[in-house]
Amino acid sequence: MKYIFKIQYKISDYIMEITFLGTSSAVHSYKRSHPSIALKAFGETMLFDCGEGTQRQLIYAKISPMKISKIFITHFHGDHILGIPGLLQSMNFRGRETKLTIYGPKGLDNLQQAIANLGFPNFDFPLEWIEIDSGTIVETEEYVVKAQRVKHNTLTLAYSVEEIKKPRFLREKAIELGVPVGPAFGKLHNGVPVEINGNIIKPEQVLGPPRKGNKLTYSGDTMPCEELIDFARDSTLLIHESTYKDEDKDKAELHSHSTSVDAANIALYSNSKELILTHISTRYKDIKDLLGEAKEVFENTKIAEDLMKVEL
Amino acid sequence: MKYIFKIQYKISDYIMEITFLGTSSAVHSYKRSHPSIALKAFGETMLFDCGEGTQRQLIYAKISPMKISKIFITHFHGDHILGIPGLLQSMNFRGRETKLTIYGPKGLDNLQQAIANLGFPNFDFPLEWIEIDSGTIVETEEYVVKAQRVKHNTLTLAYSVEEIKKPRFLREKAIELGVPVGPAFGKLHNGVPVEINGNIIKPEQVLGPPRKGNKLTYSGDTMPCEELIDFARDSTLLIHESTYKDEDKDKAELHSHSTSVDAANIALYSNSKELILTHISTRYKDIKDLLGEAKEVFENTKIAEDLMKVEL
Repeated sequence: MKYIFKIQYKISDYIMEITFLGTSSAVHSYKRSHPSIALKAFGETMLFDCGEGTQRQLIYAKISPMKISKIFITHFHGDHILGIPGLLQSMNFRGRETKLTIYGPKGLDNLQQAIANLGFPNFDFPLEWIEIDSGTIVETEEYVVKAQRVKHNTLTLAYSVEEIKKPRFLREKAIELGVPVGPAFGKLHNGVPVEINGNIIKPEQVLGPPRKGNKLTYSGDTMPCEELIDFARDSTLLIHESTYKDEDKDKAELHSHSTSVDAANIALYSNSKELILTHISTRYKDIKDLLGEAKEVFENTKIAEDLMKVEL
Repeated sequence: MKYIFKIQYKISDYIMEITFLGTSSAVHSYKRSHPSIALKAFGETMLFDCGEGTQRQLIYAKISPMKISKIFITHFHGDHILGIPGLLQSMNFRGRETKLTIYGPKGLDNLQQAIANLGFPNFDFPLEWIEIDSGTIVETEEYVVKAQRVKHNTLTLAYSVEEIKKPRFLREKAIELGVPVGPAFGKLHNGVPVEINGNIIKPEQVLGPPRKGNKLTYSGDTMPCEELIDFARDSTLLIHESTYKDEDKDKAELHSHSTSVDAANIALYSNSKELILTHISTRYKDIKDLLGEAKEVFENTKIAEDLMKVEL
């Protein structure tokens, strides 16, 4: 895992590039904009939540809004959605033609209607709104996106993105079986049997054992909950809300949020490799304690900053 | 007139303090946020337009959103209004109790409804929405706010704020007439007659000639129009939209906007003292020409920058 705090251009060797566009909780601050996370992966750009000012943060992060293919909304509190109308309007102004899909929990039709009422009944590009619930949301040859209900004071979803990683291709074994170097290698690696001199060579004869790809899990707003432990199981990176310090556990419970220690426990119990805390209450001037108490439970923890970039 | 490009605290000797929170046109940029202007004057803070990200810009400008008493909306295009839902929500989160009044042209009830549909049907502080048209909107002892329809592709209002300046109090003359130094001076200056030894002293006996206060005019989005020339007559400062350069006059006409030369002509014909261009299209990398061609028509012209502060 690699951290880049100053955004810079490079050809990435990594599968997933995650940029924290906004890392505040409901009240933003000088340094923290409202929640949004961008994921560049599998030739796409996806957004998770889209608080007010997200389109401005995209400029600072040098991420083109025109390349966003999917937006996943965790819930309908204003700090997580108020950047959507302006983002859609800007895409339209700039002549977008490619499709955009917006996923969110039950209630998405209300949001769609409210945005229409704000003066944008139609856009010139294909725009699909898909209401979802716990389960598999998107499945391609390269990745799977899943959603899971968590415990907030309104219906809220966590999301995971899992890379589908092909087994290693056993080149020496293929040559041994008489497969000629060339297109047949690709077919076998992609799971297609080939015929060599009248013999059928099956993919499983030349492929290594199954391999686990990267897994990114984002909690949305939630109290610590068991469903999330199962859902985040074996994540390469868990991004978990951490609105409060442990000393404000009572406030966290009152408002259905998590403390940094709660988040660290979820990382520990879900066997995640790394934890990044986000959705930090701007009431705290000094967040060293917040990080410190999480690290006592789960050492491999960091705190998100606006425009911080992480590569998996 | 004094320009401060870096915001700093000081006790102001000026009557009106204007801060440009956002100075872009519909498409914002790295340096220019969506339109909004803050006016601190007469013990109040007022906003003119409130594009997405205005609440963040308020933080950078060190202006408390809690002290905003009035928001004046020129028209309902997204770039001028999408900061309102988040601003209202933040005021609510922070426990606002004082009243806020939002003024705008016909259609304001739709905006109010759309914001309710976004998930904010109620706020815990008094919030009044007032639909207005051309005419006097607010009148106090200290100032008058007026609105005027201008020429855009949707119903749009310009606004002016005029200081009501008391005539000078002729102290020597009052003493000559036997008025004792003390509270009677204040009464007379405020227009109240006083009785001295059985004689009635009238205010006009001890007051100088009428004095003109500062006048600020903000065009909203508009093509050059005669109504605005009359409306902006003798402004101390005219803030006029200047979306395009003169070479793009055809685009300005097509989209019902103004060029910098159009804005300069309005300043000239309205006998305004100073012109500041705002609502600058982000298509221009270099805006020196845009300023230069305006200055050829009206020398006392400047271009707004985000967070630029002007005192009158």
